[in-house]
Amino acid sequence: MPQEANVRLTLSTLIARRDFVALKKFLEPWLVADLAPMAAELSIEELATLFRQGSRELAAATFTYLPLDAQKKLLKTLNQEQAAALLNALPPDDRTLFLNELPLEIAMQMLGMLTPDERQVAQSLLAYPKHSVGRMMTLDFVAVRPEWSVREALDYIREHGYDRETLNIVYVVDADGRLLDDIRVRRLLLSPLDRPIRDLLDGNFTMLAPTDDREKALSLFKRFDRVALPVTDENQKLIGIVTVDDMLDVAEAEATEDIQKLGGSEALDEPYTTISLTRMVKKRASWLVVLFLGETLTATAMSYFEDEIARAVVLALFVPLIISSGGNAGSQAATLVIRAMAVGEIRLRDWWRVMRRELAAGLLLGLILGTIGFVRIALWAQFTNIYGPHWGLVAVTVGSTLIGIVLWGSLMGSMLPLVLKRLGFDPATSSAPFVATLVDVTGLVIYFTIAYAVLRGTLL
Amino acid sequence: MPQEANVRLTLSTLIARRDFVALKKFLEPWLVADLAPMAAELSIEELATLFRQGSRELAAATFTYLPLDAQKKLLKTLNQEQAAALLNALPPDDRTLFLNELPLEIAMQMLGMLTPDERQVAQSLLAYPKHSVGRMMTLDFVAVRPEWSVREALDYIREHGYDRETLNIVYVVDADGRLLDDIRVRRLLLSPLDRPIRDLLDGNFTMLAPTDDREKALSLFKRFDRVALPVTDENQKLIGIVTVDDMLDVAEAEATEDIQKLGGSEALDEPYTTISLTRMVKKRASWLVVLFLGETLTATAMSYFEDEIARAVVLALFVPLIISSGGNAGSQAATLVIRAMAVGEIRLRDWWRVMRRELAAGLLLGLILGTIGFVRIALWAQFTNIYGPHWGLVAVTVGSTLIGIVLWGSLMGSMLPLVLKRLGFDPATSSAPFVATLVDVTGLVIYFTIAYAVLRGTLL
Repeated sequence: MPQEANVRLTLSTLIARRDFVALKKFLEPWLVADLAPMAAELSIEELATLFRQGSRELAAATFTYLPLDAQKKLLKTLNQEQAAALLNALPPDDRTLFLNELPLEIAMQMLGMLTPDERQVAQSLLAYPKHSVGRMMTLDFVAVRPEWSVREALDYIREHGYDRETLNIVYVVDADGRLLDDIRVRRLLLSPLDRPIRDLLDGNFTMLAPTDDREKALSLFKRFDRVALPVTDENQKLIGIVTVDDMLDVAEAEATEDIQKLGGSEALDEPYTTISLTRMVKKRASWLVVLFLGETLTATAMSYFEDEIARAVVLALFVPLIISSGGNAGSQAATLVIRAMAVGEIRLRDWWRVMRRELAAGLLLGLILGTIGFVRIALWAQFTNIYGPHWGLVAVTVGSTLIGIVLWGSLMGSMLPLVLKRLGFDPATSSAPFVATLVDVTGLVIYFTIAYAVLRGTLL
Repeated sequence: MPQEANVRLTLSTLIARRDFVALKKFLEPWLVADLAPMAAELSIEELATLFRQGSRELAAATFTYLPLDAQKKLLKTLNQEQAAALLNALPPDDRTLFLNELPLEIAMQMLGMLTPDERQVAQSLLAYPKHSVGRMMTLDFVAVRPEWSVREALDYIREHGYDRETLNIVYVVDADGRLLDDIRVRRLLLSPLDRPIRDLLDGNFTMLAPTDDREKALSLFKRFDRVALPVTDENQKLIGIVTVDDMLDVAEAEATEDIQKLGGSEALDEPYTTISLTRMVKKRASWLVVLFLGETLTATAMSYFEDEIARAVVLALFVPLIISSGGNAGSQAATLVIRAMAVGEIRLRDWWRVMRRELAAGLLLGLILGTIGFVRIALWAQFTNIYGPHWGLVAVTVGSTLIGIVLWGSLMGSMLPLVLKRLGFDPATSSAPFVATLVDVTGLVIYFTIAYAVLRGTLL
């Protein structure tokens, strides 16, 4: 956007010139929320100056757009008083997010900088479990009373609404603060001014509890096209709201978590670029070691067939091909089923439907790979002698093993996520490599059993 | 929600009793948008009755909440005239989505049912490329003129806004329909009524082109916390808007695509539960065959070392363990890097930073697995004789191969997505199994080369 580049350039120039009068004048007509994403592109030094000279609201809004490491650097460049002012001005939900990422002792220091009121808010938000709705909610909402008229409500909004993060939905509460309903602002705008708010209520609203998981909030937002959802305590008292813009971040974070687990590591929970090497290695090593220990069973399985391999070395040549084909088929099936479960297409009770599909799909895929494998060996045998005089039987062995192992991989890959879910685990944990390892070990047994049956009396 | 269950039950009961007077009365006070998600839970038969008896707007809104197969079934139960009424009442963006999923000849039939005006709208939306902003945009927006006062604008909204999908943002256009600015409704509400709209403009807005990819829209929504973004043509004329609720679906669809590719198949582009077996097998077979053909190179690689295997069968025992460890390390690295690229943490120019990280991480992970592998063989050798008299050398071979192959897998896995991106391909295509296959082939060469160096003169 040329517009954006201009704004950034003007800010940079005015800051470089230290022309703070012109800077104030330039900032004046802007809405803080519009300026913040552009200001966030400035350098740390420029931001520090802007924060000292600009409005506290602008500083707070811009701060929320910065990545974590820029936030930390910036706070270090401000003095105690400036940092305290900034922290106090942050929207409570963004502040919680930030404090939560800091080491405990620094978070405590920062809590100490807050005014008693803001500290109480921050502490209560931080007390909710990680990834809970309570951590994400904002306390800035507009609540009106049912006995007011539309005109009174609109006047109230005009007077008190300015600082609110979201004004698209207005909440109606009784004298005790209990939530009666939510009304879209459009509803207010489209109603005659003298109608009482009570007449606009339809009693239809969806609530979240502060202890709900953020995934639950995400699925409710997907289902009901709302821009905000109210959060209530056990007495149905309205204590905050969660806004849809945070949901895009939740959707991204949840997808990242699932993808990383599917890739065979623990979820990093931090950006790849900023996580410390030790923490990253720890998260990757744990699964890699588990998979490795599982995979050592392949060496055990192979050692049972050591005599067969010694007699027919040609069998060893196809071991990597066979186990990886089973593994790939298993990864595919596991990934498809895990994702379908995550987006709600498949539930536990659908297991038989999934199994029937995978029986059919696995058989077809196995036939395709088995045929290619058979043809490949038969072709090579015409031109070389590496597969020996019994190449035909070897081709039959490999071809039929492929049918069996691809079918087996598809079944294991599709059923394991359902079994894990049934046992109360996260299905994404049955990551593709996990399935591949399981299929590797069983695949070897299938391979050598078929080989023994086909090649007994000739090669074996 | 008990509330929801009640509404559903009441609707079911009234429909079963065919008490259409009471039904109309029950529906009357509800906002269509609130009722629709609950009505969508009814059975197909109940819905058909509701659609014939209820308002056309309710039918249209409810229709958008149904899954594709329910939508198809429902349209079949309605007669031509009812179906036409429903289709004409659908919001244009949802209608595009629906038509787009149908076989061409049925979509054409449906287009024929639309009024000339609606047909023109539908055809122009369908003309935009798949996954483009044009396909998702809605034409229902409120545009006001800069010379109006806030009061005039609010009156206009009150009169014309009722059907609009989104009223949270109002667009300001000149006499030719060119977009001058967007204003949040809150801004209107918070301004004195006699101020001209012109005074509220800050000239700061972000536009989309109808041909932009939906991913671009998603990233803009993430960056600017807006509930809607305007879509303009090449003359900056406002032609539609895209709303944030569609973005949650886009985020989900994009994540599904990436996950399915990472799992080693083409993106299904349809739900797992409803895609036809043939189409699913086609999408899975293509990659499985490519990976299989790549993997046949392992048989070729192994055949070069046939003599070594014949002399030292013990080497064959560790082939699955070694190649799968390399493959797992590669999958991990590839998944982490692909995801970090997708969320914008890593760009091409960061390749050296990534490589340094993976050198360090790969070496550490390799040392861990190498040590475990060494210890495992040494331990077993104390109790069994399967590794022969030279078990010490075998342990050294396997241990050092593991260090090398885990390091190699991490480097390949992290660099391949960057290389693919540089060449203009989708990095998610370098799916984990793809990396694993590459690492398998090269890993065998590493293994037998190290074995040859360590075991020459003893086993080999």
